[in-house]
Amino acid sequence: MSGRGVTFARGFTAGAAPAGVKPGADERLDVALVASDRPCVSAGVLTRNEVIAAPCLLTRRHLERGAVRAIVANSGNANACTGEQGARDALAMATAAAARLDLRVDEVAVASTGVIGVLLPAERIARAVAGIELTEEGWDAASHAIMTTDTRPKVAEREITLPSGAVRVGGIAKGAGMIHPDMATLLAFITTDARIAADDLARTVVSAVDSTFNAISVDGDTSTNDTVLVLANGASGIDVAGTDLVTFASGLSAVCRELALAIVADGEGVTKVYEIRVSGAASDADARLAARQITDSNLVRTAIHGADPNWGRILAAAGRSGARVESERASIAIGGVAVFTAGAPAAFDGAAIRAHFSRASIEIALDLGLGNGTAVAWGADLSAEYVRINAEYTT
Amino acid sequence: MSGRGVTFARGFTAGAAPAGVKPGADERLDVALVASDRPCVSAGVLTRNEVIAAPCLLTRRHLERGAVRAIVANSGNANACTGEQGARDALAMATAAAARLDLRVDEVAVASTGVIGVLLPAERIARAVAGIELTEEGWDAASHAIMTTDTRPKVAEREITLPSGAVRVGGIAKGAGMIHPDMATLLAFITTDARIAADDLARTVVSAVDSTFNAISVDGDTSTNDTVLVLANGASGIDVAGTDLVTFASGLSAVCRELALAIVADGEGVTKVYEIRVSGAASDADARLAARQITDSNLVRTAIHGADPNWGRILAAAGRSGARVESERASIAIGGVAVFTAGAPAAFDGAAIRAHFSRASIEIALDLGLGNGTAVAWGADLSAEYVRINAEYTT
Repeated sequence: MSGRGVTFARGFTAGAAPAGVKPGADERLDVALVASDRPCVSAGVLTRNEVIAAPCLLTRRHLERGAVRAIVANSGNANACTGEQGARDALAMATAAAARLDLRVDEVAVASTGVIGVLLPAERIARAVAGIELTEEGWDAASHAIMTTDTRPKVAEREITLPSGAVRVGGIAKGAGMIHPDMATLLAFITTDARIAADDLARTVVSAVDSTFNAISVDGDTSTNDTVLVLANGASGIDVAGTDLVTFASGLSAVCRELALAIVADGEGVTKVYEIRVSGAASDADARLAARQITDSNLVRTAIHGADPNWGRILAAAGRSGARVESERASIAIGGVAVFTAGAPAAFDGAAIRAHFSRASIEIALDLGLGNGTAVAWGADLSAEYVRINAEYTT
Repeated sequence: MSGRGVTFARGFTAGAAPAGVKPGADERLDVALVASDRPCVSAGVLTRNEVIAAPCLLTRRHLERGAVRAIVANSGNANACTGEQGARDALAMATAAAARLDLRVDEVAVASTGVIGVLLPAERIARAVAGIELTEEGWDAASHAIMTTDTRPKVAEREITLPSGAVRVGGIAKGAGMIHPDMATLLAFITTDARIAADDLARTVVSAVDSTFNAISVDGDTSTNDTVLVLANGASGIDVAGTDLVTFASGLSAVCRELALAIVADGEGVTKVYEIRVSGAASDADARLAARQITDSNLVRTAIHGADPNWGRILAAAGRSGARVESERASIAIGGVAVFTAGAPAAFDGAAIRAHFSRASIEIALDLGLGNGTAVAWGADLSAEYVRINAEYTT
């Protein structure tokens, strides 16, 4: 029962079609549709960039009306910085999906990823949507249709066992891989058959996204189109409320974390992923600041690419993060080996550190020695391949 | 009279010596000394990183006492994250320079740049300082002695003509080039023979640094050791006060800007420098946020490296900067050619843009269409060479 992602939860189907939005061969899947067979409660987290793409503006309005139960998405064109026509095109996509599914337009969320500043081929997309067949097997086609420079689809699911029965959560995502002129857009569509109150779902989603999708960095940029959507249709018949919310939140976070880590690992030019665990910060907020600055630092990222046990860069990144840092209280361990202890360089086996840094998965622990604040973030190395991909000509 | 940098102003001398701090050949200059033949007023801007190197802590205390008239600096070792011994070693450097110059210890500022977490060879430095001969010609040796991965010294000077006569300002700097395990340390030592009040100098220096050294970015990291020092000894006999302060500030800024741009152009792996001028922001603070985010964006930097007219990345970087941005009011020009006008993509000659991007010096203008806020910042492209340099092994 694994590998079904967005149709793992009962009552959800998906499908995809080629609409010629992606450049190159016309048969590439670039339009995806996900739908519930019954009404849903829904929640979402949309880009915090001040430059917001037309589909995100429309989706935000539809989420506010509280009845979203289907998602239509395209890759190859972000429909961003496209003015009034862009807004009409996003609405046309929602309208086409609503017609295909016999829903109201405001029951459909829209997401786009791809080139900025180019008008969408909205009619071709509408025709493609009209022909999409929705099935339980359609998760695979949908997971491919939202890819841009991703080298592989991202799919995850979990069954969550509660005292009253099991509920399912699954999702698909596309990554922060970016090849110009595409942006580092993150799309994730998650479905669950839990029966949950809208405000409980909203709180759970915000918390899960903050500790997973918002804790990854491939290159520090934030897209105009970032969209995480969660639909809950209640098809399991299992109510999730009260203390069960904690168990549900944990399962939802696990799905989000698996998708988020798959996104980092598939980032452009990425050869390894590192996890940075900050503890002993003055507050959780400080810990988050430090952890995220360390995943954003080009100097840390290149050191890790080169398997260089350069703890000075890690400490300096924390020091410029805005978090309170006192170097004489800080300690750093790499792969469980202390390299800096309470403000003093530790004698360590450089070969062991380099061996750890040469793994595909790296663990760095920074204890600030100031309080009880903790945070985890995930980053990727910075390689010459990243530069090559992102420096290529548009034409 | 050009090319004298830190000894262009009357009454200043400089010199340098090898102390074996830099790895490799023992005869490389790595200790520099700059001194005034009379008392000075002084001002400085030190790193904002929470992890502050020992020399910066000592220099801050000496600046507060208000009598700094000499600077001793070394390259090859940052004396950062070195605990109590590091504090003693920084003091030993100041003591050696004070003995050499027959000054009080608190009349000497100390700066270091290089590897983090390794104790300084303080005795070797003290012996080298004792042997430094200070001359007006010593500016050249001093400018070389502070270099780390810089490929060339940075030297600038200006004569500022006031109604009552001319005053001189000159300086030397080292760059944000960083080869691990060194940090991106920026050091700049500026001298002037203006007679100026200490608080006027302090205000002028903060403003000049903010619009120049703080407006450049090579890789977004902030060192534990960044130090800009300005000494004014009054040897010109010309008082700078009242409205003359505006003229003086302009000349000081020009020297700072020339040094800052030389630092960007000599950054590791840098093949071109771009100037981003933001106008029409809701405030100057917003303009600064947007301009600096654009110089920090890896996506913008790689696009410029590849001569890619990818204005979407510029707008998206502004959008995530924290500045207010409404894409439908924004306009972007590259090398004077409009690529995005009031929210709509402009039809432009891609070849002309790519030709401009292929120059060593690039101009990007972003008008946010919201208010009167303006700012200028300078950034550098991100090349595969940067990654190669920063991913090399420590050992």
